[in-house]
Amino acid sequence: MEKNDLFLKTINCIKEPDYSIKEESRHKIDFKTKPVGSLGKLEDLALQMCLIQNDLNPRIDKKLLLVFAGDHGIAYEGVSAFPSEVTSQMVYNFLNGGAAINVLCRYYGIDISVIDIGVNHNFENAHELIDKKIRKGTRNFAVEEAMTEDEALRSIEAGMDVFFNNYNKSKVDILGLGEMGIANTTSASAIISTVTGISVENATGRGTGINDDIFKHKINLIKKACGIHKPDPKDGIDILKKIGGYEIAGIAGAVLAAASKKTAVVLDGVISTAGGLIAYLIKPEIKDYLFSGHKSVEIGQKSALDFMGIDAIIDFNMRLGEGTGAAISMNIIDAACHIMREMASFEEAGVSNKD
Amino acid sequence: MEKNDLFLKTINCIKEPDYSIKEESRHKIDFKTKPVGSLGKLEDLALQMCLIQNDLNPRIDKKLLLVFAGDHGIAYEGVSAFPSEVTSQMVYNFLNGGAAINVLCRYYGIDISVIDIGVNHNFENAHELIDKKIRKGTRNFAVEEAMTEDEALRSIEAGMDVFFNNYNKSKVDILGLGEMGIANTTSASAIISTVTGISVENATGRGTGINDDIFKHKINLIKKACGIHKPDPKDGIDILKKIGGYEIAGIAGAVLAAASKKTAVVLDGVISTAGGLIAYLIKPEIKDYLFSGHKSVEIGQKSALDFMGIDAIIDFNMRLGEGTGAAISMNIIDAACHIMREMASFEEAGVSNKD
Repeated sequence: MEKNDLFLKTINCIKEPDYSIKEESRHKIDFKTKPVGSLGKLEDLALQMCLIQNDLNPRIDKKLLLVFAGDHGIAYEGVSAFPSEVTSQMVYNFLNGGAAINVLCRYYGIDISVIDIGVNHNFENAHELIDKKIRKGTRNFAVEEAMTEDEALRSIEAGMDVFFNNYNKSKVDILGLGEMGIANTTSASAIISTVTGISVENATGRGTGINDDIFKHKINLIKKACGIHKPDPKDGIDILKKIGGYEIAGIAGAVLAAASKKTAVVLDGVISTAGGLIAYLIKPEIKDYLFSGHKSVEIGQKSALDFMGIDAIIDFNMRLGEGTGAAISMNIIDAACHIMREMASFEEAGVSNKD
Repeated sequence: MEKNDLFLKTINCIKEPDYSIKEESRHKIDFKTKPVGSLGKLEDLALQMCLIQNDLNPRIDKKLLLVFAGDHGIAYEGVSAFPSEVTSQMVYNFLNGGAAINVLCRYYGIDISVIDIGVNHNFENAHELIDKKIRKGTRNFAVEEAMTEDEALRSIEAGMDVFFNNYNKSKVDILGLGEMGIANTTSASAIISTVTGISVENATGRGTGINDDIFKHKINLIKKACGIHKPDPKDGIDILKKIGGYEIAGIAGAVLAAASKKTAVVLDGVISTAGGLIAYLIKPEIKDYLFSGHKSVEIGQKSALDFMGIDAIIDFNMRLGEGTGAAISMNIIDAACHIMREMASFEEAGVSNKD
């Protein structure tokens, strides 16, 4: 395959959903045995799934969650409460089934795949780990660009490839996107500030739980780096290259691949949402395939969602990442599909409608 | 059994949870492989389940949802957008599996029982309906007291009896409480205004979706009725008698019965929460067994929750009742128990903790 062939082919396949089903799906849910609108957000989710699947009986059989792991050169600047080794240690934890995301995926019947897209570690006997390593961590974007343009495109294509491989084995009905990478909130906040135009202060949170001094240091580093590199706020590839992360690029690629197959996508916290934002810059037509699993404690996420016009499903005061918020909401979206398929209409049930 | 024997015996059995496990359960969740507190509300739910079950490995095997159905004399005043017959029609819908709560209970593996505690209808061939009918609907509390004191106590005991019958067949680990009853938001709002002291305006919503004129009429009726009957804000039985509903009393009884067996209880919307509030007045020690499944569109519910010091789990803009919000959150509480049982600690996973 030619260089960037997968990238171009995939984004050219992405089309908005067919909106012609909108009225009929609204009518169907309005005549179910309940006051109009009384199932609130569940109705919105059901209607969006009708649109995505172009079907009045939306159905989720296979749920897939991808966890992209990568290290960050910026971690050397001391922006995280945890040491860099935690990225690889957590990858082993994922493979052993001990992390929060493993528990939730088991509970909810979600298939999970973990991808090494840029971890600073040689994994041994890690047979279930998908090896898509671009490099052992990005470069430190406080002093140089995080990656080359070629690396940015290859990491997007890696994300696409992982999705398509899964999809081709058995059709995926909903995709959740999680990540692991010490210091990656620094990259995500820089991306969100760049794209949305909000200040670095309003895009930056405390990640895994840093103190006031490190927090100030983190904000200053992002300001300095954006000042040096001047990423183009409309160019997803340029942003990835200058201040991105391999896992963020992989997520963007998986989002684009899923949208090209008209598959629903559930973003997670601030990093996953930054990946979604990059995909949105590359191809805004993905928007109606996207859900936001949860409102993160990381403040930048909300601005990224507002920029795309997406509401978060749950607000649980979470800030773990890994896909944990996405996993919970994939289940809720599935419940909404069941409502759409199984609930009786006034006519079917012989119930009198509103006076 | 002597009159009110079940009532007295049950409330005498209710004890607060054993708080001695609190510190150990906090320690256990803080050393799991995640930044401290990063699972937000899921951690709070897990800790409350440890407390309720007095176990560091809380477990939910059997989930039960009870739907209490009853009619309301106040419906004759034209306070609802739907005719009274909808109560019995919806009971048939529940028995046929076509309502929203049926869909959610099937999806989430929740056992459901429907109780006729006061529907204005003779049910035929309704073998799965639990018959606890006190009367064919309450009296119209705009002109007379809604029920006698004996009826109030008997409907509480009916709720207790239904819970204990289920529990004795196989132990219930979590109980959700739903209802059906045209005009019952009128009773619930009156109860919440009485107990919490907030104005009728601030306790009253639009129920199934009434227009401005009916909304004003509903508020005036509640004010008038509370002015005539002067229910004692500290006396749950007096309140039920004067402005209550049989299904609200049944819910209160089931809450008390569950707390007496140290079983977690998930309230639903404004009516279910009014039932919980009555139970709380009768025995405040139930508080730590209670969860609120969702924040209802009906504004009075929030004041009732604040009065008890309880936060709602999800906020989905829902206002259907039946137990729909409770069902979704019973699943989320179960997920939190899995986190508590299955997630690895830093030590178990060989992951470095915070610097």
